[in-house]
Amino acid sequence: MEPRSADPITAAVEVLGDRWTLLVLRDVIFADRRYFRALLTGSPEGIASNILADRLKRLLDAGLLTRGTAARGQRARFDLTEAGIRTLPILCALGDWGHDFRPGDAGEQEPIAGPARIEELMADLRVRHLGAEPFGGAGAG
Amino acid sequence: MEPRSADPITAAVEVLGDRWTLLVLRDVIFADRRYFRALLTGSPEGIASNILADRLKRLLDAGLLTRGTAARGQRARFDLTEAGIRTLPILCALGDWGHDFRPGDAGEQEPIAGPARIEELMADLRVRHLGAEPFGGAGAG
Repeated sequence: MEPRSADPITAAVEVLGDRWTLLVLRDVIFADRRYFRALLTGSPEGIASNILADRLKRLLDAGLLTRGTAARGQRARFDLTEAGIRTLPILCALGDWGHDFRPGDAGEQEPIAGPARIEELMADLRVRHLGAEPFGGAGAG
Repeated sequence: MEPRSADPITAAVEVLGDRWTLLVLRDVIFADRRYFRALLTGSPEGIASNILADRLKRLLDAGLLTRGTAARGQRARFDLTEAGIRTLPILCALGDWGHDFRPGDAGEQEPIAGPARIEELMADLRVRHLGAEPFGGAGAG
């Protein structure tokens, strides 16, 4: 049995305290890159193929992503789990900080997304990654 | 002139996307460890001295910490800047995620701190690190 970490911030940092992990999640969540090739070639930071493979494996092992079974000759698509979707508030908090403090910016700005908008974005990710019903029910999508 | 990063999440990840950086900030913010020795010996993860020195230098260079000038024979104290204080919402978002998804936990829990409590905690950090007046004005502290 895996030991339960002493404090929740530390537990999260063990999974998410890594530059490439966060950038891969950013690309899956905000750029809808769901395939290895799309993540590799679309990465603005030019992620190396072995680093991408390692971070995807870590995200699968930690239960933030699942990999669909691919039909013969097709590539496997990555889906976010609920734990993966719920990293969105962390990425938004990082974005708000970056907005306010990156070099060249003028200071405090409006948040990227308020709490209600974050909930909307997560609901949308649940539709696209978990097959949840769109808000409005059957027939809406 | 430093180039302005393309997107704010990426800009934040460049500074904060590192396990030890986040753990040092956690210790300064939540455990009030303000001295090199306290950060070294108090670290539950057993941070190595060279790693701690490197991450403190990065935090100073990135403008998240300042180091007070120490009198002869005294140690220098680290203070958070406003940019350092404003990492609190990121740490709280990480904590909320860790709370909900670390192994052994039962699922979704109350947030570590809601928006109003986060503002209070940041106001308290401004008093202790930036010498701001406590709420209530002169004579309150």
